[in-house]
Amino acid sequence: MSHHWSAHVAGGGELDIAGQMLHEFNIEFGEPTPPGPAIAERLRELVASPDTVVLLVDEDGEPATRRACGVAVIRLREAIWSRSREAYLAELYVQPAQRGRGAGRVLMNAVIEHARNGGATTIEIGVDEPDAVARRLYESLGFSNRTGEGNHLMFVYEREL
Amino acid sequence: MSHHWSAHVAGGGELDIAGQMLHEFNIEFGEPTPPGPAIAERLRELVASPDTVVLLVDEDGEPATRRACGVAVIRLREAIWSRSREAYLAELYVQPAQRGRGAGRVLMNAVIEHARNGGATTIEIGVDEPDAVARRLYESLGFSNRTGEGNHLMFVYEREL
Repeated sequence: MSHHWSAHVAGGGELDIAGQMLHEFNIEFGEPTPPGPAIAERLRELVASPDTVVLLVDEDGEPATRRACGVAVIRLREAIWSRSREAYLAELYVQPAQRGRGAGRVLMNAVIEHARNGGATTIEIGVDEPDAVARRLYESLGFSNRTGEGNHLMFVYEREL
Repeated sequence: MSHHWSAHVAGGGELDIAGQMLHEFNIEFGEPTPPGPAIAERLRELVASPDTVVLLVDEDGEPATRRACGVAVIRLREAIWSRSREAYLAELYVQPAQRGRGAGRVLMNAVIEHARNGGATTIEIGVDEPDAVARRLYESLGFSNRTGEGNHLMFVYEREL
């Protein structure tokens, strides 16, 4: 059996599903997390601006039986070096039971398309070293964590304030 | 002779100085760059919103003889996981002749203060592996490129759109 996925922008009540999946995401990776409904409420505030786009992916089929199994959150802002915009993939999650069946790739292709449509000319992602599956997916889509003639690694540094 | 530095938000005509330094920054690292005045004009557009802050650092002294020797650009936006904000240090540059004399540290402390004052609870930076001086400075200020129990590296992945 072959599976076909489609991604779309989450609107209205679908942000509850997105919030719940992002909650599960944090639980799975042992991160502190607000409850799903609180995340959904925050997403609702953020998507009021075109600077935040929430995407869902689900399996093709009758609308009544469709259920999203993955979520992505894109942030956009004005760039510094040109009068274009820059995109950042803040979150990407596919539920464990649906992994390895192509949903993440369909979601990522939609991320790229929506970032472009949002006026961005570059997109960045922060990825932890052991996330091999995600890294392979990003690399297969043309992302690189290396730069310049020396082919040097690019690190994320962070601190709390 | 000891040197004392101070950092402040660049306003008005000072954005011309900031634009020129960011132009020199690109030249020094072999990056394509708009002319200084074009960067200054873009900065002027960006700082019209509180989401972008441009800081300059200069040596203490008589105002007439002061000349900025470093620049930082901070970007702020709403966070996803809480009703706070998140900061990103987009650019940090100290002119070659003034390096190693503490200006970068004064500038970074101002970056942290302004990010906090802007409502951010975290700050991120993307840093290339061979930038040893910058990495040591960030690490000495509590930044880390490692995360979680496994102390894993965090990478920036990027692609053009």
